[in-house]
Parts: sequence; C-alpha cells; structure tokens
Amino acid sequence: MAHDGDGFHSTVDEHAAHIRELLSGITPADETVPLAAALGRVTAAQTLSPVDLPLFRNSQMDGFAVRAADLAGLENGQPVELPIVGEIAARPLEPSPLDAGTTVRIMTGAVVPDGADAVIPVEDTTTTGDRVTITRARFVGEFVRERGSDLAAGTALLPAGQRLASRHLAALAAAGIGSVTVRSRVRVAVITTGSELVGVGTVPTLGQVFDANSVAVQAAVEAAGATVTFAARVTDDVTAMLDALHLAAASSDLVVTSGGISMGDYEVVREALEPLGARVGHVAMQPGGPQATARVDGVPVLCFPGNPVSTQLSVEVFLSPLLREWAGIDAPPRTQRVLTGTVKSVPGKRQFLRGRTLPDGSVETVSGPGSHLVAGLAASDVLIDVPVDTIRIEEGSTVDTWTL
Amino acid sequence: MAHDGDGFHSTVDEHAAHIRELLSGITPADETVPLAAALGRVTAAQTLSPVDLPLFRNSQMDGFAVRAADLAGLENGQPVELPIVGEIAARPLEPSPLDAGTTVRIMTGAVVPDGADAVIPVEDTTTTGDRVTITRARFVGEFVRERGSDLAAGTALLPAGQRLASRHLAALAAAGIGSVTVRSRVRVAVITTGSELVGVGTVPTLGQVFDANSVAVQAAVEAAGATVTFAARVTDDVTAMLDALHLAAASSDLVVTSGGISMGDYEVVREALEPLGARVGHVAMQPGGPQATARVDGVPVLCFPGNPVSTQLSVEVFLSPLLREWAGIDAPPRTQRVLTGTVKSVPGKRQFLRGRTLPDGSVETVSGPGSHLVAGLAASDVLIDVPVDTIRIEEGSTVDTWTL
Repeated sequence: MAHDGDGFHSTVDEHAAHIRELLSGITPADETVPLAAALGRVTAAQTLSPVDLPLFRNSQMDGFAVRAADLAGLENGQPVELPIVGEIAARPLEPSPLDAGTTVRIMTGAVVPDGADAVIPVEDTTTTGDRVTITRARFVGEFVRERGSDLAAGTALLPAGQRLASRHLAALAAAGIGSVTVRSRVRVAVITTGSELVGVGTVPTLGQVFDANSVAVQAAVEAAGATVTFAARVTDDVTAMLDALHLAAASSDLVVTSGGISMGDYEVVREALEPLGARVGHVAMQPGGPQATARVDGVPVLCFPGNPVSTQLSVEVFLSPLLREWAGIDAPPRTQRVLTGTVKSVPGKRQFLRGRTLPDGSVETVSGPGSHLVAGLAASDVLIDVPVDTIRIEEGSTVDTWTL
Repeated sequence: MAHDGDGFHSTVDEHAAHIRELLSGITPADETVPLAAALGRVTAAQTLSPVDLPLFRNSQMDGFAVRAADLAGLENGQPVELPIVGEIAARPLEPSPLDAGTTVRIMTGAVVPDGADAVIPVEDTTTTGDRVTITRARFVGEFVRERGSDLAAGTALLPAGQRLASRHLAALAAAGIGSVTVRSRVRVAVITTGSELVGVGTVPTLGQVFDANSVAVQAAVEAAGATVTFAARVTDDVTAMLDALHLAAASSDLVVTSGGISMGDYEVVREALEPLGARVGHVAMQPGGPQATARVDGVPVLCFPGNPVSTQLSVEVFLSPLLREWAGIDAPPRTQRVLTGTVKSVPGKRQFLRGRTLPDGSVETVSGPGSHLVAGLAASDVLIDVPVDTIRIEEGSTVDTWTL
C-alpha cells in the first residue's frame, strides 16, 4: 500500500488484512451458560460424554423380550408359544432376569432384562391370556439398543468450535449435561460523531440529521454474534471524543467510530486519534473511501466514515466477516448473478452498488451510488461488487454479488 | 389418506398439509417495539416516511458552494477566482443566501445555502487568503444532495412483512422513527411426557433417561423465530397431562407434546387427547412414524413421538417450516448432493437419514437409522431424504438433502 501526505492508500483487500491483523489479539474469555441460554453460541472446548448413550440396554419396540435361542422352533416353520411372566414399562425399575423359556411384555425405551437378547415387535405376536405366540424369528440383538451404542462414555459428544443448534443442545441434555462452556461474545463499543446528529424523538432544526449510524452499527454487531457494551454519540469536540474513547476502551474488545476522519475541518475522530498514532487514509472503494484505525489504551479502534451508507458498508466489508468468524456464523453467500440494466462505475475504486434481486434471479441497481442513500440501501438485498478498474458493465453480464 | 382401526395413515406431505391447515387460524397480534429490540423481527405493516430524506439540501463533499453560472469562465479554459465569504459546517444553523460572484466553504452534510446550486470539491481548488481559485467547471446540482432525493415524505420506507436487518433499522432511524410495529412471535407451549424422564442435575436410576426433548423442542422453536411461553414435563398420568394441556393452551398459540402416542400401554398423550377428538395415526416416515394432532380449548396441539430423534425430526419436518414462514426466516437450503457409501432403506417409509457433508461436498450417513441416536443426530449437518419406495441407493448417486 502507498503512503503520501494524504495518508495511506490501500485496496479493500489490503485494508481488510490490516484490520484482521489489528484485531488478531482479541481473545474473548470463555463463559459457562445453561443450555437454555446456549442456542447459537460456540463451544469453547470439546465436550466428552460423562455417560454411555443410551444409559442402559433398552427396547426399540413395544413387544416381548425373549431369549433368541428359545425361538429355534421358528426355523422349522413352527410358531413358538411362551408364557408371559411380567411386564416392563419405560419407568425407573430394576427388572428380574428373564428365565429361559419365558417372555416379558416390554415397552419402547424400557430396560431389557438380563438374559433377554432380542425384542419381538407386538405386531409379530398373538396373545391369549398369559401366553404369547410368536410367528417370526429374530436374531440376537434385534430391536435391542445396547448401552453406549450411540456414544460411549468418555468419547467426544461435541467438538470445540461447534455453533450450538437444537440438536447439539439435545445431545448435551441427553448426557445429563446442563451447562456448556462457550466463547464469550466479542464486546464492541460504538461511538457516532458529528455536531449535526440528533437522536430519534427530537424535532431536528435545519442542519440536524437523525443518527442512523448508532442504530445501524449496533444492530449489525449483534447480528454478527457480538455484543454492544458501550454506545455514545459525541459532537465535534475533541475532549469529549477522547473521554468517550477511553470509556469505550475500558468496557470493550474493540471500538467502532463513525464520521470525523476526512481531510476537512471539524474531523473530530482524526483530531483526537492522530496524536495517539492513528493510521488515517483512503481505501480504493466507494462508498467508504476515508478509513482509519488506531489503538486507545491498547484496544483496537476502527474508524469508519460517517455517511450512513459508507458506515454500513464499512461494517459489512471490514468488521462483520471477522465477528461472524468468531461467532461461528456462516457468512452470507457471495454469488454470481446476471445483471439487468447497465452499471457505470468510477475508475480506481471498487464500487459496492446497492442491488435488488429480480424474480428471474438477476439483479438490478437500486437508487444511485451516493453514500447518503440510506433508504436505497434498505430497499436492497444484495451489493453488486464492481471491480476497481471497471467503468461500465453491460446488461446481461455476470456480476459478483454479496447477499445482505 | 387412508384410515383404519390403527388410526390414520398419511404421507409426509399429507400430514404436513394437515398441520398447515390446523395452524392456519393462528394470527399473532402485532406489537410495537423500540428499534433496539427490533432486529430480526418482521414488520406488521408498511411504514411510510414522515419526512423527506435527506431532510434538507446538503453538500456531498468538503469544498465550496457556488452558483454554477459564476463558473462560465472555465468554459474558455480560464480558472475562476471567487471571494470566500463564509463557512458552513455540518451543524444546526440557517445559512445566509449566497450572493452572486461569491462562494462559501462548505463541509460534507452541511446545508447548501439558497442561491448556491453546485459544490466544488476542495481538490479542484486552490485557496489564497480569503479567495479561492476554481479549476474545473461543474454542472448545476453537482455534489448537491437534494431534499427528498433518497425518499420523499409520505412514500414507503419499508414494506409489510420485512424481516428487519441493520440496514432497515438504519433507514427507520434516519427518518426519525424510534419504534416499529412488528408481528408478535408465535407463542409455543412444550410438554414432554414419560415416567422415565428426568431433568439434568439428577442422577438417573436404572430405567430413567435425561429429558433431551424439552431442551431440543424449545431451542428449535426459538431458532425458528417463535417463543416458548410454557414448558412442562409430565409422567404417564392422564390427569396431570390434562392439567398441563389446559395450562399450556391458556398461554400459547400452539402446543407441542412429545411421547405417549403409540398403540402400546401407558400412552398418556393418546389417552388424554383421544376423548377430546384427537386424530392419532401413522405417517409413512422413519423416524417419526407415530403422529397425532388435537385441539385443547381451541388451541392446536401437535403430538410428536417421544424417541428423541423422532421428536426432533418431527419438529424439523412439520413445525419449523411454518414457524420460519411466520418469522420471515429463510428455510435452510434443500440441495442435491452426491452420496458417498451406499444407503439401505425400508419400503413404504420416507426415511430421513442423518448425514454429514464431506470435504468434497458429497454426503455420507452418520450412525444408524435408529430413533434413539441423539449423539448421531448432533454429529450430522444434513438429513438425507430417501423417497418412500426406495430400498437402496448406490454410491455416487444423487440424493436430496435438507441442511440442518
């Protein structure tokens, strides 16, 4: 990447690599949570099963537990009749061993008694009083679920790094495990800047705009599996900005700022952070060209430009992919699609145009390229990724898209 | 679908259609939530913007606001020099109109003064004292963001049925909207049954098993965008079951039960619900064959079989698709993949085998077909959907898979 008086000049990929490196020291602590709070979290370590699954030898069917050897007569085509000497339900109990030449009624999931080595499904039997006639032979072990046949005690139930869905929580519960150690969520602080910003619930005067970035960045961070631990909005006041940055750093793994990093006047983020060694410059992308990074009290700070579309695309391009990796969340697909309409772009900048998927699967642009078109972005479902040196794409061409 | 003394006999698609019909009367009320709680929720109605976006005519660049007509000299190749008569920052203020033959310094996002009709980027200028020399002509409107050019007041900002991502929340915030009316989450009650069940934290005696289904169903319901409003575990006691069902119905839009619907003895769900008109029978699928539905106090009840894999697959096949539709969540993809290894199946049943994706993109089965293999299900990432009349699939064949 080149440097000049105007700050660094990087490609998107170079800046993404720089941010990955800057954030590489973030190692959230583990935490242990009950299963009811573990959906979607990522295991911090391999979990070994403390028990055999199933816990005990049990019946796969409603039917009759037998010694398979007692059914030898069936090999000559003769039905076998056995006395029913008891019944075993799916309940806590310790059944008596099964004597040769007898059977017990047994329910699905019930303990198979010692001595029995097969279960005859009820549909292959006829019962008369306390005797049952069995019409089909079964091999040793048939319809018997052996203890540990799903998983043996001491073997791996779940690997480290597993994002927990309902089936994983079910397996933990089945093994009697009530809590699980997961990676802590990455803690993100969000500071939006600009003397023009007001929150919703205010009637803006001329020159004021509602702060969309605070809402947007916080929601994007949460959607990517991280958590917001600090949020502030500051005016173009360097002292206030430094106060906010120190507070933010004290409670977070990383800080995101929006606005205040251009080369104009009243650039509060740049003015606060340059004395602390911030790296300020330009990424060859549109929207989102002005970019900076810094550290405050050792905590990485990602400084994104303040136009709301620039802020949101910066989060999507540079931050969300890393947050999703930490949280074990699959990245939204990047696919190739056919372009409806033509696209113009500017040389020297990789452009992320807002696009909409049409019923035929092709994409068209939504609104213009301007970085203030926040409603246009909301109406989009893809970004059209236009390479840095492309200035025009013809209708019917294939384009790279990022699913939003 | 056929009926006989053994209850109904349905295909998977027939039973899914029956459940869709049974649940068709569920119409959750709307609720209004602040933007901070709206991520992932689905809009209940179209939202119109109460304001123009942008709120006022503002500058797209740091530079100089001018009257384009004053730059006519540039058409002859002559730089134009103008006196700088002021400065407009991105702040609340009401700038004076711009007099002909003058310019004001202006920041990105700042109010463009009346009279000015273009902005000259600072990089196309040279400033000497209080005069600026402009070296490149601009057309009327260039680098000026017109009021309402993103969205006009009174037009649609978001449609009904929009699942809210960060970009939608940003657009609402930008328009000064602090809360949004969304569809309420569907309220689901979960009742697991069986005298053999114990919760985690207990040391099971012989015959007892940990209740994996309560955890699994609750997590699956939450993952599909609904909410659990009641959860209970009951023994094989019809009175206790009826008590639980009435409590469940009082607080939920639908009730899910697991276990107790086979034709054996101690089938508490069947015994409690058949007198209330339950529809009990068989679906031609494995796992998950025994199935029932009912209504209690007018509230639909879905009765799934109790083997943990049967329960979980029943939720995935019959319930989660409907919950996801209500919650605006995309269904996990169903794709065709190449089979590694061979598969055997049983005639007359559509089989959902647990499968694992291999590095080459093909799938192989994980563990066996047994409905107790809860660790095997946890080790899977797809279901292999084997058609009802297939008994064997050869290595290298293409199979239908459901992503978990």
